[in-house]
Amino acid sequence: MDGQSFYAPALAVIGTGMIGGSLALGVKRRNLAGRVLGADKSRGSLRRAHELGIIDEMCESPRDAAARADVIVLAAPAGASGELFAAVAPALGAEKILTDVGSVKAEVCAAAAALGPHARRFVPGHPVAGKEHSGADAANADLFARHNAVLTPMPDTDADALARIESMWRALGANVLQMDAARHDRVLALTSHLPHVLAYAMVDCFARSDEGARAEMTAGGFYDFTRTTSSDVEMWRDICMMNRAEILRQIGAFQSRLGELAQSIERADRGAIESLFAAAKKERAQLAAKRARR
Amino acid sequence: MDGQSFYAPALAVIGTGMIGGSLALGVKRRNLAGRVLGADKSRGSLRRAHELGIIDEMCESPRDAAARADVIVLAAPAGASGELFAAVAPALGAEKILTDVGSVKAEVCAAAAALGPHARRFVPGHPVAGKEHSGADAANADLFARHNAVLTPMPDTDADALARIESMWRALGANVLQMDAARHDRVLALTSHLPHVLAYAMVDCFARSDEGARAEMTAGGFYDFTRTTSSDVEMWRDICMMNRAEILRQIGAFQSRLGELAQSIERADRGAIESLFAAAKKERAQLAAKRARR
Repeated sequence: MDGQSFYAPALAVIGTGMIGGSLALGVKRRNLAGRVLGADKSRGSLRRAHELGIIDEMCESPRDAAARADVIVLAAPAGASGELFAAVAPALGAEKILTDVGSVKAEVCAAAAALGPHARRFVPGHPVAGKEHSGADAANADLFARHNAVLTPMPDTDADALARIESMWRALGANVLQMDAARHDRVLALTSHLPHVLAYAMVDCFARSDEGARAEMTAGGFYDFTRTTSSDVEMWRDICMMNRAEILRQIGAFQSRLGELAQSIERADRGAIESLFAAAKKERAQLAAKRARR
Repeated sequence: MDGQSFYAPALAVIGTGMIGGSLALGVKRRNLAGRVLGADKSRGSLRRAHELGIIDEMCESPRDAAARADVIVLAAPAGASGELFAAVAPALGAEKILTDVGSVKAEVCAAAAALGPHARRFVPGHPVAGKEHSGADAANADLFARHNAVLTPMPDTDADALARIESMWRALGANVLQMDAARHDRVLALTSHLPHVLAYAMVDCFARSDEGARAEMTAGGFYDFTRTTSSDVEMWRDICMMNRAEILRQIGAFQSRLGELAQSIERADRGAIESLFAAAKKERAQLAAKRARR
């Protein structure tokens, strides 16, 4: 499969926001498709993506896009997956390939049953390349370069469809990983969903505080910490709904860790605090080094 | 006081790390002192600061630096303040001015009693301009520009000393704010100390997880969120020790907020989650806009 190039006569993105737009733009720039079509529930967003040259043609509906394309990428918030599967199912044939970019995979895989016999041609995917920006204006043809794209095929996923989507992500510069959907959701709850939830809770804490001077007393650390709260609200609501159990498990684990640290602070245990901070600094440095080598 | 320029025949920084080094470099670049002296408990760090041209002269000890300078800036981790006050006290005279840059103020103000009659010439200060980097190599002459420098004078702080330190920070490009030490510590516990503590607990959670693929599945959000854990370990240990009560209070408030959000997720309350996320996004955008206008 390595080195196999990707080409689709017509590729459609359903949802022309930041992720769908970046995918469309990356495909166009690298000539990976003859035409790139787009559909979006917001007519204004769709027109904007067309104006920006991110898509070649605007489609009337998800079904229209699926009817006209060979490879269809669902890039709407994951909460809309069930509805979109139902919408595109009638337009799918034995040769078409459907994939998605949702941040939660087990529920999306379950919802794919709505595709009936075409469920085999659905390749569940997740490019782990979030940004706090949203909308077609934030599209970037190189968004996925050196980032991971995780594919979570189901037992009956068609091998050919899987191989073609894998080559699509490789052509966009991504590293492709494969794992099962449950494992994906467990790991992402820790690496992505938990930090987002904590940042939201932090800003909530901030907003409810009665410290008048708080706005003046923020430094860079606060902005780094809370950057993710600028992300798309609807997308993050859906993620919390769709990966509830794993997110709650990680919140529980975090609360234990924070409670232990609070106890060390309470009993003024300098040694315990210093060793936790030193270990965290080292862990993060190792992670950042691994990431830089990707 | 506005528009009054600052000049010291000899200015000393005790602690030539990132903050002390940035102050020294900023003073030199703007010709705010005849000579800039430095002292550091690490001889290697002191030599490095001298090699980099951050300081003009190396001093043998904090006392030596205090004896040779007119304005002395304590820029070592705040936990060392008591010891440093005792060390420099014998070298202070009626004309010298002492200030500091510690992130916690009430305990530092209390420790300043060790200065005896010279305590009036001590101006407690805190430039709110953290970076995750440390050491003289990270020094930046413009680090304080457009950042807040908070001064927390005590009832008997000398008005002339206060005015001169205020003009020093203004000359370095900072906005100067004044408030009492207790208020400073309360606000900073929320805006700075809490996010740091949460980031440490998050990385601790991560390090203890048994999810093997976790390193591969991190995206930008995780790195933004945990950037602050690369900060100086000793400095953050001291902050947790010196602002214990306020930090514990903020951890408690955060735990309540996180607990509420977890409950909304548990009962799948889409509306509550969405409105919390939307409010957080709006709050952060307003804060960032205020910050950009500084």
